[in-house]
Amino acid sequence: MIYEDYYIFTPGPVKMSQEILEIGAKQTPYFRNGAFSEVTFACEKSLLKMVNAPKDSKVIFLTASGTAGMESVVMNLLSKDDNALVVHGGGFGGRFVDICAIHKVPHTDFKVQHSNLSDIETLAPKEAYTSLIVNAHETSVGHLYDLDAMGEFAKKNNLFYIVDAISMLVTDPIDMHKQGIDVVIASSQKGLALPPGLTMVILAPSALERVKDVENMYFNFKDYLRNGERGQTPYTPAVTIMLQLEARLAQIEREGGVEKSIQKAKEIAEYFRESIKDLPLEAYTPFMPNAMTTLTPTDGKSAMDIVDALEEQSKVMVCPNGGAERETIFRVSHMGDMSKAYVDVLIDALYRYYGQVR
Amino acid sequence: MIYEDYYIFTPGPVKMSQEILEIGAKQTPYFRNGAFSEVTFACEKSLLKMVNAPKDSKVIFLTASGTAGMESVVMNLLSKDDNALVVHGGGFGGRFVDICAIHKVPHTDFKVQHSNLSDIETLAPKEAYTSLIVNAHETSVGHLYDLDAMGEFAKKNNLFYIVDAISMLVTDPIDMHKQGIDVVIASSQKGLALPPGLTMVILAPSALERVKDVENMYFNFKDYLRNGERGQTPYTPAVTIMLQLEARLAQIEREGGVEKSIQKAKEIAEYFRESIKDLPLEAYTPFMPNAMTTLTPTDGKSAMDIVDALEEQSKVMVCPNGGAERETIFRVSHMGDMSKAYVDVLIDALYRYYGQVR
Repeated sequence: MIYEDYYIFTPGPVKMSQEILEIGAKQTPYFRNGAFSEVTFACEKSLLKMVNAPKDSKVIFLTASGTAGMESVVMNLLSKDDNALVVHGGGFGGRFVDICAIHKVPHTDFKVQHSNLSDIETLAPKEAYTSLIVNAHETSVGHLYDLDAMGEFAKKNNLFYIVDAISMLVTDPIDMHKQGIDVVIASSQKGLALPPGLTMVILAPSALERVKDVENMYFNFKDYLRNGERGQTPYTPAVTIMLQLEARLAQIEREGGVEKSIQKAKEIAEYFRESIKDLPLEAYTPFMPNAMTTLTPTDGKSAMDIVDALEEQSKVMVCPNGGAERETIFRVSHMGDMSKAYVDVLIDALYRYYGQVR
Repeated sequence: MIYEDYYIFTPGPVKMSQEILEIGAKQTPYFRNGAFSEVTFACEKSLLKMVNAPKDSKVIFLTASGTAGMESVVMNLLSKDDNALVVHGGGFGGRFVDICAIHKVPHTDFKVQHSNLSDIETLAPKEAYTSLIVNAHETSVGHLYDLDAMGEFAKKNNLFYIVDAISMLVTDPIDMHKQGIDVVIASSQKGLALPPGLTMVILAPSALERVKDVENMYFNFKDYLRNGERGQTPYTPAVTIMLQLEARLAQIEREGGVEKSIQKAKEIAEYFRESIKDLPLEAYTPFMPNAMTTLTPTDGKSAMDIVDALEEQSKVMVCPNGGAERETIFRVSHMGDMSKAYVDVLIDALYRYYGQVR
């Protein structure tokens, strides 16, 4: 097995807990029966509670990765009669722009830099929109947007508010009811700390009303909603990951609820940031989520060189960027089964790289 | 965990080997690097060998269940200028018909019963087709089609030949080169005996030529092929299942190659069929694959009653049918990590149900 004894600080896959890993070693059970429907219902109920979804919200479970969640939402909920304001602060925002273009949904490519959109009122183009789309945590650069301010803006302008929460659920706060969010997209391999392959779309009643007929089978929300009534999916679900999700959601609840998980992620992130402040690394953005820290070397070193050195010298996996940012930034995830002792391995590795004593 | 100590004879998920299960309990490694590319290349190479794919064939790895494989093939390889002959002998054939309709691919709903299409030359409608589509093993009823005869027919009529091999790969023979198959669809949770969530599309050069632009992101084969050149996928792959696939393909090779696996499945299927021949159960079709046996009670008993009784009395899971067939047939899979001793549990359970001594 590759990288079996490595320390994991990549933003997906993230470190999983022993309890979850053990379920991965069980036989996958047959699922077209009441016992598995109960698993689905338990997952749905916990997820809805976790994001404080409005009454009668529903969850769609897709056997697919996060991009399928983003695309299926645009396909099923937006049309040529919409005009979407798409926040584009990095690669994932750009992906939403591309998806709208592919599916012929009129949209504005709203390029955002150096703002968490707490000032969206001022920054947004003065155009009549019907929808607002954002990756709450733009994972390509580690930038968190202000879901409260965007929610206010969406409410005031009567916008259908779609939030990709893939890289911030469990580590950073989100509240569908309070923030007026209509759709939340989540995925298994980030804060939920499960293997990749399961994506969830949470639909408020306002979103359920919007579900339209699509010229597609695998991403037809109507089929998922109909099957969901009896705790099933139209096509084979990611059964093992669903069982792991059920256990993970129970684990979060047992450990004090999602607020506690968020608090813990915050402490871990602050501990890491504080511990490395004497090294020649600076935060790439002032708007960092608890989920991740993005760092820029200030001494002219190559970010990619640091990533490689941590892997080779210390068996520590952090995440490089591609393209132009390859040399200038790297990313450190705080998602998953983290502890200060585990993060110390990374901190020590960074000090070792710089030949400094911690 | 549900059904943890049950005996598994359902046609997906199927019983997995201990070696594969243990990989499910490992941390998921980061995958955007050379080490994971090697995993992808190893899987591609072994799969191509397994189906005797023509030189320069390619594999697309989709994080999705089998239906996504079926749909994406139609989306990327067929168009309104095609005319597809779609074999429809059960629920999965019907699904291909629906997919062609959704994507506006002209087609004939070729309803087939009581034939394995060794006589396709006689049975096929006399119309000009461009493509032939079949689920090699129509899993809804356990019926295996004659891929040789269909291949001959496809060759003679210059048809683009698409074979869904999801429920027969590893247990029943398929040979792209010999049978002139252009596309093979496979999935993780059947004969490959892995958890559900990974689907593979194998494209011969004749299929690669056909790949067109599609108005879809997640199912855009061109993106997969481009990323595949460096052993990557455009979106997060089902990393854990890919690692399990690599190990499983090596396991099959180590144990004597796919011919040996097919032989073993044949022996298991024959052993089961022979062992229950004194019970009031008859084969539903004369064209059974090694992968599965479909049985009809001949004493007026309800098939669903048998399924339930096996589960309750003996912790044995076989597969019920839905709809009109709920009372008349049930299915027994021979896919996965089977042995005669394991099958004996099912045979004994059936004898117990009938109050007979084996």
